[in-house]
Amino acid sequence: MAALTYVCPSCGGNLEVEYDWAVAGAALTRERLASDGDRTMWRYAPLLPTAGRLEGPPVGWTPLVEAPRLARSLGLARVLIKDEGRNPSASLKDRASAVALQRAREIGAELVTCASTGNAAGATAVLAAAAGLKALIFVPKATSRAKLAQMLTFGADVLAVEGSYDQAFDLCLEATRRYGWYNRNTGFNPYTREGKKTAAFEIAEQLGFVAPDLVVVPVGDGNILSGVWKGFVELRRLGLLDRVPRLLAVQAAGSAAVVEAFHGDGTLRPASGETIADGIAVSFPRDGEAALRALKASRGFGVKVSDEQILAAIPAQARASGVFGEPAAAAALAGLSEAARLGIVQGSWTAVLINTGNGLKDVASAMKVAGEPRVIGPEVASLEKLFGAERGAG
Amino acid sequence: MAALTYVCPSCGGNLEVEYDWAVAGAALTRERLASDGDRTMWRYAPLLPTAGRLEGPPVGWTPLVEAPRLARSLGLARVLIKDEGRNPSASLKDRASAVALQRAREIGAELVTCASTGNAAGATAVLAAAAGLKALIFVPKATSRAKLAQMLTFGADVLAVEGSYDQAFDLCLEATRRYGWYNRNTGFNPYTREGKKTAAFEIAEQLGFVAPDLVVVPVGDGNILSGVWKGFVELRRLGLLDRVPRLLAVQAAGSAAVVEAFHGDGTLRPASGETIADGIAVSFPRDGEAALRALKASRGFGVKVSDEQILAAIPAQARASGVFGEPAAAAALAGLSEAARLGIVQGSWTAVLINTGNGLKDVASAMKVAGEPRVIGPEVASLEKLFGAERGAG
Repeated sequence: MAALTYVCPSCGGNLEVEYDWAVAGAALTRERLASDGDRTMWRYAPLLPTAGRLEGPPVGWTPLVEAPRLARSLGLARVLIKDEGRNPSASLKDRASAVALQRAREIGAELVTCASTGNAAGATAVLAAAAGLKALIFVPKATSRAKLAQMLTFGADVLAVEGSYDQAFDLCLEATRRYGWYNRNTGFNPYTREGKKTAAFEIAEQLGFVAPDLVVVPVGDGNILSGVWKGFVELRRLGLLDRVPRLLAVQAAGSAAVVEAFHGDGTLRPASGETIADGIAVSFPRDGEAALRALKASRGFGVKVSDEQILAAIPAQARASGVFGEPAAAAALAGLSEAARLGIVQGSWTAVLINTGNGLKDVASAMKVAGEPRVIGPEVASLEKLFGAERGAG
Repeated sequence: MAALTYVCPSCGGNLEVEYDWAVAGAALTRERLASDGDRTMWRYAPLLPTAGRLEGPPVGWTPLVEAPRLARSLGLARVLIKDEGRNPSASLKDRASAVALQRAREIGAELVTCASTGNAAGATAVLAAAAGLKALIFVPKATSRAKLAQMLTFGADVLAVEGSYDQAFDLCLEATRRYGWYNRNTGFNPYTREGKKTAAFEIAEQLGFVAPDLVVVPVGDGNILSGVWKGFVELRRLGLLDRVPRLLAVQAAGSAAVVEAFHGDGTLRPASGETIADGIAVSFPRDGEAALRALKASRGFGVKVSDEQILAAIPAQARASGVFGEPAAAAALAGLSEAARLGIVQGSWTAVLINTGNGLKDVASAMKVAGEPRVIGPEVASLEKLFGAERGAG
């Protein structure tokens, strides 16, 4: 960690963390990174706001998977998928929780609380268990069984709030105020953005420190968007990137406050928050102001996609690339397809999709579009009925 | 790949693959491996039986997670978990499918078939999609929804056989004979063991080429056991290991043909195959002879565990280490605990548990023991009821 201070660019928004750029620049060079055997997010420790590294299963350095068939079908030069589903709790949120929990340890907190639609809670439960911290989690009661199973299996104390994510969030903040707990909430804790920016560091390094033309980010609270943007800007500041990518913010049609504000008068207004993509189902985005600033600064774009487009993107991505996304993650491909249809993207571009969470976290949604198996009897006759009597079928 | 031939040490069993040891030994040295940036199973290509590498999401180089709290509670010097749930399809089977599918490509096969209780099928579906191959999969009709969802999402043609895994296996073999399809079945295709041995290569390399004292392997067909053993033996042959570890074979009480034969007269006899751990639910182990040979050669041990012990091990492992296992995977910890109780293990030992599949593949089982959330109203009063009115609780 380099020396750091907090600055607050917009009242009431997420605090920013600042670094000693001379120290970070000396430590993070192409050569030093190339010879660094630490294949986790902590390889960028000089640009992370903690003194140490969180113990437990390794977070980050997820694969950037080449998807040539997607590139061809979308008319782009190159498409890659940053598969964040390969993290310990199977989502990008591990990056945020890793930094926030290490901070909690360093200030002596024993209990970490958060409110979540599922993935931030899962990440907090998994990493808290490994690090020996207690996790107390507020979720809306409708949270999926797979995500609940993960939190509970890892020993978190889970409070299922009879209400929305927004109500769970507010209750969690009130608990923090009353009981002095350490709060990891997205858009409240400045460390989450610091963790998430490491996804941008990795994308840039995995591409040989050449920025892609476009990075496609599913947007709920807006914290991944603002975090990824911060990562690219910091690398440019260090001289590791010549240019930064444009960002494409993708929101579900029922949960599109950021995209609406971006295309409208710049003012964030609550949406219904209704979408099958629970990871981006947000009424009022908790890091929306920073997300809007990032989108504008990157000369980026915003698109809205329907739940049908999101669901269709799950098998489309899986079959073309081998990467399984939950609905919120598949929204990235749905959004890139929509952007291609609208003529926003250029054929010479390299685009990176961020697969924010593993499809195994929501198999019920996948099953809505994946089809059903063909049921057959165990006799050889059932083979003959399907494939004929001899060689040459199939 | 070094030059290779096939040899058949036991009629009707799995064929063995042989390498040119001089070529492999020159290519695979500590120094060359240390400077090899390829963090996938293909870093060991000189000991893999294909000319090229499978394209698609990277397989292997999964984390070896330190679990000091498990070591303390079991009375061992050190316990580590090889987390195979971090592979593309979230199980160790990706290693086997990667090699088998690359072989299929190299001989010009376009369709790959297999029978599976779920994980081998998932691995085949995911990697076939990425590599542009067709997958035709036979599963018992009772296969879990999460595993079915994965295969179907990735576009495999799934045949749900009204019968057991053993019946699905036999039907798949018959189809292979009739239609000339490429068959990836465990215990039939010699390449699966070649893929699985890379887990042993990685364990050894990640421990600095010092073998652990004990490697704990959940056993169904016995192919992981025989594969892991082959990996350690090959490293010793290359001079990269001075000694090989003992193996601990763990089977579910209802599916314990290998352990029964090991403790009895050495003859494999069909078991009921009934256990909640579907990944190791096997009546007659398809690679049982090789598994028995490996167990004896390693001066190893076998233990049986109940479904209750397996289920209890899921949260026990998760909470102590941050690693989520499906029932078949958690059987490893259940077995190591049983071995500790029986006095088989020594306090000075380093043990490695192989977490063969991600807990997200079977959340229904996890929920049987994970507990339930506490349901609360969205009002501040509900906080006060739980934690009191002011700071200091929690």
